[in-house]
Amino acid sequence: MLQVAIIGATGYTGSELVRILSHHPYTNIALITSESRSGERFSDVHPSFEGICDIKLQMAAEIYKTHLDIVFLAVPHRVSMGYVQKWQNHKFKIIDLSGDYRLSSADVYQKWYDKEHLTPDLVPDVVYGLPEIDSNAISSQKIVANPGCYPTASILALAPLLANGIVDTKSIIIDAKSGITGAGVKSSATTHYSNVNENFKAYALKTHRHTIEIEEQLGELSESDLKVQFTPHLLPIDRGILTTCYATPQKTVTEKGLQKLYTSYYQSKPFVRVRQQAPEIKHIRGTNLCDVFVTYDERTNRIIALSAIDNLVKGAAGQAVQNMNIMSDLPQTAGLLSIPLNP
Amino acid sequence: MLQVAIIGATGYTGSELVRILSHHPYTNIALITSESRSGERFSDVHPSFEGICDIKLQMAAEIYKTHLDIVFLAVPHRVSMGYVQKWQNHKFKIIDLSGDYRLSSADVYQKWYDKEHLTPDLVPDVVYGLPEIDSNAISSQKIVANPGCYPTASILALAPLLANGIVDTKSIIIDAKSGITGAGVKSSATTHYSNVNENFKAYALKTHRHTIEIEEQLGELSESDLKVQFTPHLLPIDRGILTTCYATPQKTVTEKGLQKLYTSYYQSKPFVRVRQQAPEIKHIRGTNLCDVFVTYDERTNRIIALSAIDNLVKGAAGQAVQNMNIMSDLPQTAGLLSIPLNP
Amino acid sequence: MLQVAIIGATGYTGSELVRILSHHPYTNIALITSESRSGERFSDVHPSFEGICDIKLQMAAEIYKTHLDIVFLAVPHRVSMGYVQKWQNHKFKIIDLSGDYRLSSADVYQKWYDKEHLTPDLVPDVVYGLPEIDSNAISSQKIVANPGCYPTASILALAPLLANGIVDTKSIIIDAKSGITGAGVKSSATTHYSNVNENFKAYALKTHRHTIEIEEQLGELSESDLKVQFTPHLLPIDRGILTTCYATPQKTVTEKGLQKLYTSYYQSKPFVRVRQQAPEIKHIRGTNLCDVFVTYDERTNRIIALSAIDNLVKGAAGQAVQNMNIMSDLPQTAGLLSIPLNP
Amino acid sequence: MLQVAIIGATGYTGSELVRILSHHPYTNIALITSESRSGERFSDVHPSFEGICDIKLQMAAEIYKTHLDIVFLAVPHRVSMGYVQKWQNHKFKIIDLSGDYRLSSADVYQKWYDKEHLTPDLVPDVVYGLPEIDSNAISSQKIVANPGCYPTASILALAPLLANGIVDTKSIIIDAKSGITGAGVKSSATTHYSNVNENFKAYALKTHRHTIEIEEQLGELSESDLKVQFTPHLLPIDRGILTTCYATPQKTVTEKGLQKLYTSYYQSKPFVRVRQQAPEIKHIRGTNLCDVFVTYDERTNRIIALSAIDNLVKGAAGQAVQNMNIMSDLPQTAGLLSIPLNP
Repeated sequence: MLQVAIIGATGYTGSELVRILSHHPYTNIALITSESRSGERFSDVHPSFEGICDIKLQMAAEIYKTHLDIVFLAVPHRVSMGYVQKWQNHKFKIIDLSGDYRLSSADVYQKWYDKEHLTPDLVPDVVYGLPEIDSNAISSQKIVANPGCYPTASILALAPLLANGIVDTKSIIIDAKSGITGAGVKSSATTHYSNVNENFKAYALKTHRHTIEIEEQLGELSESDLKVQFTPHLLPIDRGILTTCYATPQKTVTEKGLQKLYTSYYQSKPFVRVRQQAPEIKHIRGTNLCDVFVTYDERTNRIIALSAIDNLVKGAAGQAVQNMNIMSDLPQTAGLLSIPLNP
Repeated sequence: MLQVAIIGATGYTGSELVRILSHHPYTNIALITSESRSGERFSDVHPSFEGICDIKLQMAAEIYKTHLDIVFLAVPHRVSMGYVQKWQNHKFKIIDLSGDYRLSSADVYQKWYDKEHLTPDLVPDVVYGLPEIDSNAISSQKIVANPGCYPTASILALAPLLANGIVDTKSIIIDAKSGITGAGVKSSATTHYSNVNENFKAYALKTHRHTIEIEEQLGELSESDLKVQFTPHLLPIDRGILTTCYATPQKTVTEKGLQKLYTSYYQSKPFVRVRQQAPEIKHIRGTNLCDVFVTYDERTNRIIALSAIDNLVKGAAGQAVQNMNIMSDLPQTAGLLSIPLNP
Repeated sequence: MLQVAIIGATGYTGSELVRILSHHPYTNIALITSESRSGERFSDVHPSFEGICDIKLQMAAEIYKTHLDIVFLAVPHRVSMGYVQKWQNHKFKIIDLSGDYRLSSADVYQKWYDKEHLTPDLVPDVVYGLPEIDSNAISSQKIVANPGCYPTASILALAPLLANGIVDTKSIIIDAKSGITGAGVKSSATTHYSNVNENFKAYALKTHRHTIEIEEQLGELSESDLKVQFTPHLLPIDRGILTTCYATPQKTVTEKGLQKLYTSYYQSKPFVRVRQQAPEIKHIRGTNLCDVFVTYDERTNRIIALSAIDNLVKGAAGQAVQNMNIMSDLPQTAGLLSIPLNP
Repeated sequence: MLQVAIIGATGYTGSELVRILSHHPYTNIALITSESRSGERFSDVHPSFEGICDIKLQMAAEIYKTHLDIVFLAVPHRVSMGYVQKWQNHKFKIIDLSGDYRLSSADVYQKWYDKEHLTPDLVPDVVYGLPEIDSNAISSQKIVANPGCYPTASILALAPLLANGIVDTKSIIIDAKSGITGAGVKSSATTHYSNVNENFKAYALKTHRHTIEIEEQLGELSESDLKVQFTPHLLPIDRGILTTCYATPQKTVTEKGLQKLYTSYYQSKPFVRVRQQAPEIKHIRGTNLCDVFVTYDERTNRIIALSAIDNLVKGAAGQAVQNMNIMSDLPQTAGLLSIPLNP
């Protein structure tokens, strides 16, 4: 059994990690930490878990006293890099769910996150853990940066096009819509029920930090220096992201050809379902699945690619467990085969 | 492996049975039927299941050609009794999720369901499958009537009081609130999004068929001929029932004493959680759990007992699988230990 | 034109007062105040009002420099009594939307609100402004206490029974359900979208402050010292309260007789609709209406009375305007005849 | 007083017309018709209107016996053209809320609606009633085609750009999101609560009929033959449309310049609010307002324009009343100045 620690228990990422790992056949949750609520039980913070996970929360410093194979960092960015700085030479492997190690360099990080990085030398070396793109690169790593939720959905929607040089790299528009859990567990005007319910809006126009994450990954796939138009919106639902992506082909394409390409690209990827119809968020809710669909509009000569993921699972905790599986030579799907809760 | 059949694939009960049984360690889904959509795949009817359950739907008559240990009837009442009539002498065991065999006699059935029963002699013999009340009675049965969703929540909220003669049996009021999946998969004005969303109402005042089901079961527990006031309401959510039950004690009680009683009554019942605070629907969503809470208002001399279940799981498919486990000498919790999806 | 001031602009009560008064034919909004956001425009705080109400917010002290006929206090309890203490001798009339002057005495207030009252002598003299019960008493007042949202719905559901001695005063149970705006505009775990959405729960069991408000008013109507069982619940909707009230008759009653009684009791009350079917929240959304319905269950010998209001309108701002109309000799319905927004 | 008739009472458009016209200062609802429910009261069909509009529904043939100035056709397309064919020579003016007369010719209609037109000669002559684009053209008309909901939002978002030759006409993408009332009052799998709630999806990719309506109108504004990429999505809310529109400039632009252009273009348009921030659906709910916002992304050289309307008001009934006002020489805002219901 892998001994795992979850650093940061109070957020949604933390509770989803516990939800998934509790039934994982090859792991044991050895430690859950929270600086603000240590001493309480995990189920005091997340009452759904009463009788299911009543582990007492510890301070993060407890990692020194615990035998651990894997440490999940489920804390805000900035906090994450502090732990990595301290723990990088420990024996356990680290999967960081924050944004701190997803970008190509400390400079790029500083530009988009507006703060200096604590471990600039480490940044370029940490692998971006999106297994459907390159799971080999992940398997040998000691530290993996778990992708953001929007980037996971966006990259999986577009990867077959970029990897095959099909689209004009200047033409990419990603119109993304996310459930409110993406904004976190913290109470604020943004998450107040009456500001979300029966409402819908775009936010962070032109400036969302996930933009650069998408650009770097798609850029690498297409071996080009591309820019994307990324517009996130807030859906009045708990979970789920749907992206609607537009791009102009730079080659002759057909709808059939594109669908064949997607099917082939994701052939041996257990969590990507290439659908025959536009995906729906509820079809993947609570699971590590990513549904994708591609179509071609002859009238306008434009490709439309759509994807749907659960932002807390494939967009966070589920993908982190998938990375853990890969890093630990376990079957990629171990502990991750739940069925969508629908309705 | 138990070979199981699900008769009736198109409804929510059918899809929940498949969701649960797909990961059940001791069963194999040998047959799924639908008279209206046979020939199609299960995932054509429920697209969430694409790649997860693509079994081809058959006609119910296929049961004759299939080796089966357990048959779940996930069809409307009236339809159910037709199948039971035909299949009662077959070797497989039957778990009926409809209301056809839950009442004490064909006469009572006719009074509340307004139709003659097809197998009047069988009705009194079929056991009511609420395992927390009497799991021994279930274990030896060939046919079990799976309880209704409201009755499951209501009886579990009140059973410790009735079984111990604590309350005036004339004083019981059950104010129940259910998510819209209780109204089924059928499209109608009742289930139209804009009639449910941002709305709330009571319905079937004084006449809901689950009233008699609750009365008979609580009556048996209290060895009395009781009547309850049962008022269902429609919540603008997908899943979940919350009941708020009121009763006047006929003995001196204390809050502490009542909570101790509940804890003790449900001690070895793995799916009932006696909580220290008012239950919430989201704390049990997607699971076979029933959260209960009891309190006593000295000011008014009244006991308030609350319960929360997922109407599609503990209120239908999950409880059916729990009954199957008991009827098949499997651990009661086999296949049923999922963790609430929250948020 | 009546010159009116709204003290407290940031909450929902404040914004609803502006919404209603902006189209009132006989009033002019002379002043809107906010201690925390003075200097900003009303539409900076409530962006829906851009171009509709861009009045600059003032400090409350501005009331001394403004000619005013009516002052609405849309501030939290405790804050309200401070203003009343200072302003009680000014010429303008005061309508207090907080709980500070709704109870019969400072002693009762202290018991339920757990704080000493600042103006104990004033408390017994301030009239409870529920116009359907006694609008004459309101018309001559200088200060009126605007009823709570739950009490408005509960009292209107039950008043005809109590005023006519029909029910056993010990038997009253009010199972109430409210939308989340009842919890106010403040961000907290309680109002976080993901704690409300797809969820439902009871809260403040046995102890909600509106209990005593209901008891005192129904007690007066029935000339008795009654206690009610009042259980509030939180609905995943923005607006609206539905109450389901239970009581045992102490006389022989019939359903027809009860419905006739209700129709007659509310005959000349323009905002109460006695319905022929169970009320629905969406049927009154955005309006000052109160839908009521009464039925009698012969089987259990119990009366069920239901009511529905919009908690922000008939339960707060609308009723305050109705009180203003009465206090100012205007038609009771002036400015209040909007039509339910449905869907 | 204008005597008006509403043909088609059972849908949302019909009920919104009654909601708005009931408080219109210059109209009298002389007739409401429904072929399927004539004889019943309007409030039997829409119970929110009990006591507010209890008019008895008639057959459409009653228009011959009624003095009428304005007839609103609130019936499905195809049905509408049948009435126009019969009634075109009557004295009253007609406002058609269906899609039957919005396109430039019967040929275009047949191509997108897949049916022959009954009055092909009339089609080119009927004016498209979007008052913010050309209210003069509307004022003298006898028959006006009320725009579709998506086209209203899309055209108002983009009109200043097209009318001023600012964008490459091949670059326009409209990613639109609508509440479920856009799918109508009919019960279907599409409108079933559990298929909408907590869900989100695109639909009618590449083929939605509103595409051609948008193309023709924007084409006229830009004096070019343009094509747009239009992708509608279904939001889990009752009302409201938000469009996110992307276009590439063909001139040098600045964000400031664009915002100035929008402000100036909509200067004397009472229902368009040019906002300084991304619009939100709840900011315009229940009103005839259209909020628009434009921004420019220097990084990608792309213009993003967003708009929000209430699909049932500015997208249907409200705009129809606005057209009636213009056709009847009334102030454009008569009866239409309600304030957003928020929350």
